[in-house]
Amino acid sequence: MNSFVSFLDKSPDLIRQIVEDGLAIKSGSRHPENLTGKTLGMLFFNPSLRTRVSFDQAMTRFGGQALTLSASGDVWNLEFADGAVMDGTTVEHVKDAAKVLSRYVDALAIRSFGDLKNLSDDLQEKVLRSFEKYAEIPVVSMESACEHPAQCLADMMTIRERHGKERVKFVLSWAPHIKPLPMAVPHSALLCAAHLGLDITVAHPPGFELADSYLDYSRSVASSFGGSVKVSHDQDEALSDAVVVYGKNWAPSSAYGDPTRLASMLDAHKDWLVTGDKIASASTLLHCLPVRRNLEIADSALDSPQSAIYDEAENRLWAQVALLDHVFSS
Amino acid sequence: MNSFVSFLDKSPDLIRQIVEDGLAIKSGSRHPENLTGKTLGMLFFNPSLRTRVSFDQAMTRFGGQALTLSASGDVWNLEFADGAVMDGTTVEHVKDAAKVLSRYVDALAIRSFGDLKNLSDDLQEKVLRSFEKYAEIPVVSMESACEHPAQCLADMMTIRERHGKERVKFVLSWAPHIKPLPMAVPHSALLCAAHLGLDITVAHPPGFELADSYLDYSRSVASSFGGSVKVSHDQDEALSDAVVVYGKNWAPSSAYGDPTRLASMLDAHKDWLVTGDKIASASTLLHCLPVRRNLEIADSALDSPQSAIYDEAENRLWAQVALLDHVFSS
Amino acid sequence: MNSFVSFLDKSPDLIRQIVEDGLAIKSGSRHPENLTGKTLGMLFFNPSLRTRVSFDQAMTRFGGQALTLSASGDVWNLEFADGAVMDGTTVEHVKDAAKVLSRYVDALAIRSFGDLKNLSDDLQEKVLRSFEKYAEIPVVSMESACEHPAQCLADMMTIRERHGKERVKFVLSWAPHIKPLPMAVPHSALLCAAHLGLDITVAHPPGFELADSYLDYSRSVASSFGGSVKVSHDQDEALSDAVVVYGKNWAPSSAYGDPTRLASMLDAHKDWLVTGDKIASASTLLHCLPVRRNLEIADSALDSPQSAIYDEAENRLWAQVALLDHVFSS
Repeated sequence: MNSFVSFLDKSPDLIRQIVEDGLAIKSGSRHPENLTGKTLGMLFFNPSLRTRVSFDQAMTRFGGQALTLSASGDVWNLEFADGAVMDGTTVEHVKDAAKVLSRYVDALAIRSFGDLKNLSDDLQEKVLRSFEKYAEIPVVSMESACEHPAQCLADMMTIRERHGKERVKFVLSWAPHIKPLPMAVPHSALLCAAHLGLDITVAHPPGFELADSYLDYSRSVASSFGGSVKVSHDQDEALSDAVVVYGKNWAPSSAYGDPTRLASMLDAHKDWLVTGDKIASASTLLHCLPVRRNLEIADSALDSPQSAIYDEAENRLWAQVALLDHVFSS
Repeated sequence: MNSFVSFLDKSPDLIRQIVEDGLAIKSGSRHPENLTGKTLGMLFFNPSLRTRVSFDQAMTRFGGQALTLSASGDVWNLEFADGAVMDGTTVEHVKDAAKVLSRYVDALAIRSFGDLKNLSDDLQEKVLRSFEKYAEIPVVSMESACEHPAQCLADMMTIRERHGKERVKFVLSWAPHIKPLPMAVPHSALLCAAHLGLDITVAHPPGFELADSYLDYSRSVASSFGGSVKVSHDQDEALSDAVVVYGKNWAPSSAYGDPTRLASMLDAHKDWLVTGDKIASASTLLHCLPVRRNLEIADSALDSPQSAIYDEAENRLWAQVALLDHVFSS
Repeated sequence: MNSFVSFLDKSPDLIRQIVEDGLAIKSGSRHPENLTGKTLGMLFFNPSLRTRVSFDQAMTRFGGQALTLSASGDVWNLEFADGAVMDGTTVEHVKDAAKVLSRYVDALAIRSFGDLKNLSDDLQEKVLRSFEKYAEIPVVSMESACEHPAQCLADMMTIRERHGKERVKFVLSWAPHIKPLPMAVPHSALLCAAHLGLDITVAHPPGFELADSYLDYSRSVASSFGGSVKVSHDQDEALSDAVVVYGKNWAPSSAYGDPTRLASMLDAHKDWLVTGDKIASASTLLHCLPVRRNLEIADSALDSPQSAIYDEAENRLWAQVALLDHVFSS
């Protein structure tokens, strides 16, 4: 059964094949057969625009159907602890929800952001892994606490479209924000470049480290394809010879649960705003969207010729068709 | 026009035929023709997981379509009183909503729980009956104040699958909870066993009586098929020779609107928890889900070989296909 | 690209053609071809019953699909100001939302009511015009601050069905309410009658003037087809020889943002309730629904033989099929 919860579970070869399939589907040279007549249940614990619409259309355009459920409102408040005496606010155990939905739909896509209370908790991916444990059908991530695989596939497609199989310099640059954001997208941006074998610099202010497990895994995958991963605290230097720039905010896990410290850490680095000037010598700017314009990335960068943000968003659709075609292939 | 609001409106022969049709559809020996090209409007006044997904898939798998509307949010706050001067919080009269929706969709499925303020009010089924009065298309219950017909059909299917047409002992056992729950499911469990002609014991603590109208009707139907209905206040005795056990909480109507009395009545009977030990000699355990594990029914029962809860949930889908095939048959 | 945001952008000939197409589609003599395989994204900033269901069914019945998004909940809080530093509550710029959705769906239908703070702001139609500016696909109004084009087309169809091409007297009568309502529907009722070349009286208490731009434009269109527009403050006189009566409340723009003055202005004219007696000599009563019965229009009028409110609601469906067939025609 082809669940797809984390890149870390999957061979780089499979991932690269899905990306190539996405490119072929987009160009019309490959026609996915496995979505026909299938229903994808989509369960959202968090809001979504791109993900909701692009997964829906991925299914619909190739003969399937998507069924959207909001975890707050449409379904019952879920219990995740095995053996719990459910005399509190939870109404249904994830075991029962997963097993019942398995009788109605063909795969289950789930979006569940992290709590941002404790990085090691977030890394356990309680929600996604619980559904994966109990479901009798494939489970697909639509962004979890620490990873956004569908975004990652779309990002890989976008770089492949713009730079072929060239080993270019990829910079993931931290960018400012006013709220604590999870690490799912930066982790996936890192995985994206690693699986393409690029020369990666992760640039962020001190204290904003990504999770070691994602750094280590990406370093290993990148090097297996001839690439590399380094970390820098100097945005200007990192961007000076970048070819692909991925701008994105994330919160420092050291400040999880400490709003005062978090606010002060965010406030201290507003000059990390990614501007048109800073990416002037680069070829491609990526961002997963939504983006807070002129706080995180400036209009001068987002609306520049280097900006690939709308192609990247469109590639969500094609990458997900390829992903779902794989998920439904067995 | 084939509305389906209450078992009490329908002949037992029709109901048994729908159950047989559901079994035949599930086995692939019967193909329902009447859903093709039809749209079922689904209007939810309360949350739903199983009902929403299983009705949607019932329509979709056989060439129809379901359109989900949430009464809080998607549609306007409805007025139910004829002749009301609508100068308060209600924005649209049910008459107008029902007649307009009748122009757009082919049938209207409605979920509206009871208020649990007054049993005789709940028994009048104001919401469902108002839509039935004004709609020009069939109205189908997705659970009303006092009845859950689609669940009942699925329960009948599940017992038929496990016990054929045997006249077994069926025990509906009250189970603990921390919140007041309606009588829709226990009434329907009773109707289920009555329409199968089983020997029924309704076991509950004193003061938790089901509605007389449902008891009387079920007694009459059960006896017409050779079965019987009795009431017991002794759970152990009732379960000692049970073959099919249906565990479910419901609130005592004598405590409707009296939270203190209700809490004390619920609190006094926590030992009615349905456990694996208590059902050790039974063959089948049913529950409509969602279930509060280890408060209402223990893991030892829910995860036992006797447990039919996931088959029962799956049968919602097949029973509803058969029900809708009947609804759209004229 | 055939966006449809305002009647004021479109030639009266095109509008009349869409109405004729709607009548032909309803009668079965015309089969719309352009909806097949298309997806309409529907974005709601406000609640909806008729609009949601009728647009969905318009697409579905003719081989397309509708995808509903709620702006509060499903999508991110949007920024509309160009160049804004997004360090407040807005999470995504309308530019990005519009351009991304353009990659996923074939047209975008939007409902966004006015703020009722300032008429000139509402007349600028910030939300609809922003999406129109940035989208790369057609944008269709599902009711904006000052206009409801799809309702208007349905109203034109309904009058054509009942009165052919006769130049009858049309009275748009203000009606009481307890809350401030926008001018979108009365403006569209006025445009409806103007495009049919009717003799129009807009009857309202002093101080409840419609927007000059809509009055002037309608006067010009009406006269080009042999009709006329006048304004009256005497409901009885206006209704005495009316053939078609459109009853509808709207708030006085002079009281926007002044709840005390608004309440007193609304309270002073409760005798403008449209009753069966008042329309006794008319042939047709219209209202867009939802209607607050016996506050705005009496049961005696709404349930009278003159009442065309359910046909009018049904015509939403057919008019929108014709509208979408036009939108997707290029």
